[in-house]
This record gives sequence, structure tokens and C-alpha cells, in this order.
Amino acid sequence: MSARAIADAAQHAARHMALASTDAKNAALEAMAQRLSAHQPELVQHNHDDLERAAESGVPEHLVNRLQFGEAKIASRIRSLRKIAALPDPIGQVIAHSRRPNGLDAARVRVPLGVLLCIYEARPHVTVNAGAFCLKSGNACILRGGSEARQCNEFLGHLWRESLREAGLPEDSVQVVAVSHEGVDELLGMDGCIDLVIPRGGKELIRTVAEKSTIPVIKHFEGICHVYIDATADLDKATAIALDSKCLMPEVCNAMETLLVHEVHRAHLPDLVAAFRDHGVTVRGCAATRKAVPDVAAATEDDWRTEYLDMIAAVRVVPDVNAAVDHINQYGSHHTDAIVTDSARAACVFREGVDSGVVLENASTMFCDGESLGMGAEIGISTDKIHARGPMGLEDLTSYKFVIRGSGQTMGDYPRHDGES
Amino acid sequence: MSARAIADAAQHAARHMALASTDAKNAALEAMAQRLSAHQPELVQHNHDDLERAAESGVPEHLVNRLQFGEAKIASRIRSLRKIAALPDPIGQVIAHSRRPNGLDAARVRVPLGVLLCIYEARPHVTVNAGAFCLKSGNACILRGGSEARQCNEFLGHLWRESLREAGLPEDSVQVVAVSHEGVDELLGMDGCIDLVIPRGGKELIRTVAEKSTIPVIKHFEGICHVYIDATADLDKATAIALDSKCLMPEVCNAMETLLVHEVHRAHLPDLVAAFRDHGVTVRGCAATRKAVPDVAAATEDDWRTEYLDMIAAVRVVPDVNAAVDHINQYGSHHTDAIVTDSARAACVFREGVDSGVVLENASTMFCDGESLGMGAEIGISTDKIHARGPMGLEDLTSYKFVIRGSGQTMGDYPRHDGES
Repeated sequence: MSARAIADAAQHAARHMALASTDAKNAALEAMAQRLSAHQPELVQHNHDDLERAAESGVPEHLVNRLQFGEAKIASRIRSLRKIAALPDPIGQVIAHSRRPNGLDAARVRVPLGVLLCIYEARPHVTVNAGAFCLKSGNACILRGGSEARQCNEFLGHLWRESLREAGLPEDSVQVVAVSHEGVDELLGMDGCIDLVIPRGGKELIRTVAEKSTIPVIKHFEGICHVYIDATADLDKATAIALDSKCLMPEVCNAMETLLVHEVHRAHLPDLVAAFRDHGVTVRGCAATRKAVPDVAAATEDDWRTEYLDMIAAVRVVPDVNAAVDHINQYGSHHTDAIVTDSARAACVFREGVDSGVVLENASTMFCDGESLGMGAEIGISTDKIHARGPMGLEDLTSYKFVIRGSGQTMGDYPRHDGES
Repeated sequence: MSARAIADAAQHAARHMALASTDAKNAALEAMAQRLSAHQPELVQHNHDDLERAAESGVPEHLVNRLQFGEAKIASRIRSLRKIAALPDPIGQVIAHSRRPNGLDAARVRVPLGVLLCIYEARPHVTVNAGAFCLKSGNACILRGGSEARQCNEFLGHLWRESLREAGLPEDSVQVVAVSHEGVDELLGMDGCIDLVIPRGGKELIRTVAEKSTIPVIKHFEGICHVYIDATADLDKATAIALDSKCLMPEVCNAMETLLVHEVHRAHLPDLVAAFRDHGVTVRGCAATRKAVPDVAAATEDDWRTEYLDMIAAVRVVPDVNAAVDHINQYGSHHTDAIVTDSARAACVFREGVDSGVVLENASTMFCDGESLGMGAEIGISTDKIHARGPMGLEDLTSYKFVIRGSGQTMGDYPRHDGES
């Protein structure tokens, strides 16, 4: 199918989806959950074939890891589909409402965006999540996954079509496509037909998409995330949070890359470094860290700006919370940052001062995650400030319209203004 | 001042403004209101000089009209500044909040966007409105008005600086600049420093800005707005609404351009056309309209797509509300459209079917206006669906951050998920 035909089909489907009932949308989600369950062995086999081909063609290991779609992950997606079905339908919600002095009733009512284009690397589970989110929020979507996951994605696309048909919704509401790079470029030029582009993957992918697109793009850039251990922090709690933030899933964007430590804790640096090393983390440190633990390698300016996505952590000693905030705003990526403290004042300085999508107090950076935050899953973590920021849920895939209801009002009988406000 | 120096100063100011108290921001608005009042004669004189220069240099009449900033308009801006001061401060508002099963407290808290760049033609009143909106929403802004309004804008910029200083806020929070076109181009490339661009003016200006900018742009395109008179409409009410929508301010984007009439009203077309003509409106009509009123000029396909901004209206007869919706979605600009009806069903079809930022029932399109909707004024009317749609108020100049507060939670002791949601 040509890019044009795909986009036209999506736009046609979107018009129907905008008016689809909550019941029909939830029925499609449940139908998909049941199909994932019924076809689990085939899905695992398709994924196995993709993995084999990826290994043969020398796909880098971190991409191969992300390509995994085994039994546990399928079961997790089934749970997630049902969580999304259980969420309130955002469409038709009244976001704001007022009655004007002249009797007009004015409301902002949530409506779908229309057609969404998701471009992502490998990761078949995104084909489930993104489809489910777009569907529940009344949008049509075009999902273009990485070629490494092609076989598994193709099968998931087939299951989406069946599930939508079963629920009486347009099959083209979720289109899993395998268009060429030229086809993607063509889609990225279709403003007026496609309403939003969500690229997920490496920095280069996102930058390229943003540059080529004439459609608005929600960017999901890297996460250079920090944990700051404040003067008043309980060190056991702080160490647990830092280890969880670093080691649980070092490959994800909200994993900690740099640990900032208040200088009052200098004497505890050897213990802290040892704890990281015990968990297999290589530590690089600032001068003060190396003074306390001489066999730590030196961290350079580059380290403060690096998203390792690996079992490496940089450690820097700072004089106070303000210095921690400054470091984070200067070197971080405005993604996810945590403070461990018992001081309400320090927490407030950190919360207000750190210019990031997600700011945590006394909790692991791992909780920057749609599922943990009650969104059912997430369609991504926006590093933009416009439209959506941080983990994106259903409502972040919507727009609104003003619905103004009157009984014949004209401005002629309204307090006159100068007409140019 | 160079574009770089302007942007740096704005970014510096933005960091302070994000933490500014509501009282300080309101004090600056009140100080500006008092200055507009105290310096009204000078403002009128500066505007007079601008108008004279514009007339001499052959600026088109519709731009000269928009350049007007006389006593009535200044008084209206003073009222508007006080209305904006009286509005709730959006910054720090909790948009959403939940307590998670593991005890985490998660909130979306409203924060400013940072630095806004407004580019507009003539219209000195925008220098007041946009500055007031950006200030109250905790942003810093760079205001680049048209060169025709330069003298008046320069003086308003001076008054903004004084007002901010009086309130103890950074003077660079509202910078009224007169940079060259090259300087504007330079500013449009400063993503990472400027957070949002809001161009207001003709189609060409907006298109050029959107093409050149690497920063997100909220577009304010044309308004091809409709009034549809349904089968069940009261004709007196309908005529009043159509006349108000067309004639009150034909030069504004939310003025009606095309009137759609249900075919049951064929016999009343001569009266309708006569009413428009009585108000000085030239009517162009479809075949059915011309059959009823033979001396009406023929409307072509082009007419359905034209924003006249003038005392011209196109009239088309349609068989039912669905045809009206289809016409509006096909030829309109997704801006502002009204139905006049006594049928709840037709109103519902129209409301849900018309894909526009503002949909009105039994009210004039003139009410697509921030002041009428209780926003104090408006910074523009977005024709985008992303971030903001329709009349933009204070909250549309904000983003949010997730603030997550815990007591030492790590994901290790949280129901395990697959880590890739």
C-alpha cells in the first residue's frame, strides 16, 4: 500500500473513531487481549524468527534485547490492554466549563487528535501499547516499527484488524505498516492529514524525524537522570533508591546516570561506591569522590552529559541542594530527577528548581513510568514541554473544542469591547 | 541588542519569573495599567505618528485600521490588564493527582513554558495583551511587533520595563524588540532557549515563521467561518446571529464568511438577502440562492474557500445538517462555526461532526473571543490541535511537571512489570 493510501485510510477511520462508543472501543481492546492469549505460541514463534534474523544480521545487542517478546511480556501486554479498557474514556470529557454573564454556556470538550503516526525501533510491545492508547483515545494510528521486528509486528497488525472488526470498528483504525524509508518521508510531509508524529528510539531517529516532519512531533529524547542525596537523607534509604534507579533496568531512559552527593556524606562515599560495585556497577567520580575512594576512575565533563544506558554511574560531590539543582539543569536532559532528603525546604528547592518533566522526592527514578503512575501503560515519555511532558497517557493523545451554547445571543447586545482583544 | 543577547536575557528572566509570586505578577500588571492611564496622551501621540507614517508609506488600509490605538482602545487594555490580574494564577496549580497503591503521591503541577516569542503585525494592543498574558503565566517573552507600530510599541516596551521594575520583577521578562528580519530568523533557530513561537498576522507571515522555526509554533491561520440556519431555526434569531457574525467586525478572523441555509427556508431567501444588503453586505450565492434571488452574483468553488475579511458573504442552500457539516469540514478552516436550530438532535450532529476549534449553538461567531469567554483577553486563536486550540488563555501558555513524592519507594518492592511499558 502506498503512503498516500495508508494516510487516506487512516483519516477515513479517524472520522468514525471520533464518534465511536466507549463500549465498542473497550470491546476491541478485550478482543485484542483474548487474541494475544489465544495466539501466544505463534507470537513467540514469530518473535523467535525475528530474533534469529536479527542475530544473524548483526543487530546491536541492546536492540536485540528490546526486540524480545516472550511469554512474560505478552502476558504483561494482556494485563495492560485490560487496564487501558478499565480507564475512563477521555473523549467527551468536559475539561473546563463556565456560564458567561450573557447566559452563554462555554465548555472545553475533549476530542481526539485525529491521525497519529508512531515510528519506533524494534519493540513489538509498542505495537500493542500504542495501538491500544490511540484506539481508546478515539484516534486512528499508523504504526511503523523497526524492520527487525517485522514478522512479529505484521502478525500483531493482523490481530488488531481482527479485533477491531469484531468490535464493529474500522479495521484501518490501527494500521501496522512496513513502508520504506521513502514512504516514511512521504508520511512525514502529510500535515493536514496526519495530526501528530511520535517517534521513539535513538536520538538520531528522533532528530531526523523532527527535521523532516512538517507535522508536529512529540519528541522522546534521551534521559540523563540524577539522584541527589541531600545532607539530611537517610543513607540506607538513599542507597536503596540510587541502586534501584541505576541497576533495575539500566537500559531504560529513566535509569539514573549520575549520582550527586551532599558533601556532608564524604565519609560514606567508600560504602556507597562499594554498594554500587557489589551490584556490578562501574563508578566514575569527581575529584572529591576520588579523594575518598582513590581507585575510582576520573569522571570528565563528558560523563556528566552521557546517557550510559549501561552499568556505569558517575558520582559527584556537591556543596548543597542549589548546586545539585544547577548541575541537573546544566548537564541533565530535563527528563527525570530525584532527591532523597528529610528536609522539607530542600525538597521544595529541588522540586521548584529542577526543570524536568518528572521530579521525585524519596523515590526511585524507575517510577517515571505510565504503568506505575496509573496510566495503564504509556505511549512514551515526552521530553518536550509543548502539548505533553513526561509519561504520556490517554489524555495526552487528545485535543479539545470549545462548545458554546446560547439562546440567540449576538455581540450587539453584549457589553461592547474594542473587537481586537 | 543582538538576537543572542535578547534570548539570553529572556532565558535569565524566565528562571526568575517561574518562581515569582502571584502578588508580584499582579503588581506589575496594575503598575502597567496605571502607566497606560498616566501616559495616555503620549501613547495616542506615538500612535498618531505611526499612523501618519503608515499612511505616507502606503501601508494597506486594513493594516492601518489594525494599527489604531486611540483612547477607547487604551481604556479597554487597562480594563483587560486588571481582568488578567484578577484571574487565578495558573502556576503551581495541581492539574491531576493520584495516590498509588505503593503509597507514592503523584501530581501534575502547572509550570511556565519558559521563553515565548510573539511575532505580529502592527496592532500595538497585542504588545499589552501578550505581555500581560506571558507575565501572569510566569513566562518571559520577546515581543516583535510590526515596524508600522514601532514608535508606539517602543514606548509600551519602556512602560513594561518600568512596571516590572516597580514590582521587583526582572525587566527583561517582557522585551519589546525591533530586531531586523535576519534577527527574527536567528531567534527562530534558538530551540533549547526559546520554548514557543506564536505568530499572529497574515497567512504568509505564519507560514514563513512555521517553515523557518526549529521551535514549536502555535499557528493562528485564517478563519473561514460559517453560520448554518437549520430547518427548525427561528428565522428572526437566525438572521440576527448571521448579521452579527458578518457585520459587527468583518475584519476579524471569526467573522462569518459563508451562510448555509436549510432548503426549507428557500422562500425566505429574498428576505435574508435583503437583510444583508440593508447592512451593506454584498451577497454571492449558489444556484438555489440565485433561483430565489436572481440578481445575486454566482458564488464559485473559490468563494467557499475564501476569507473575505470584508462586507461580502457567500450563501449556499443545503439539504440537511449533515450536508452543512460536510461543507464546513471540506471548505472551512476548522476555526469557528455556528448552528442556529431548535432541534437538539441537529445541534448534537453539528457539535460532534464539525471539526473546528469553536462550535457554537444559537450564538454569534463573535463570541469566539477570549474576553467573552472569561479569559481576560486572549493571546490568539489557535488553529492547531496540538497544545492549544481555539482562543488561548493563561493556562495555554503553561506546561506541567510530574511531582512524585514517596518515603523511600523503590521498584524492587513494587509489583514487578516487564520494564518496557
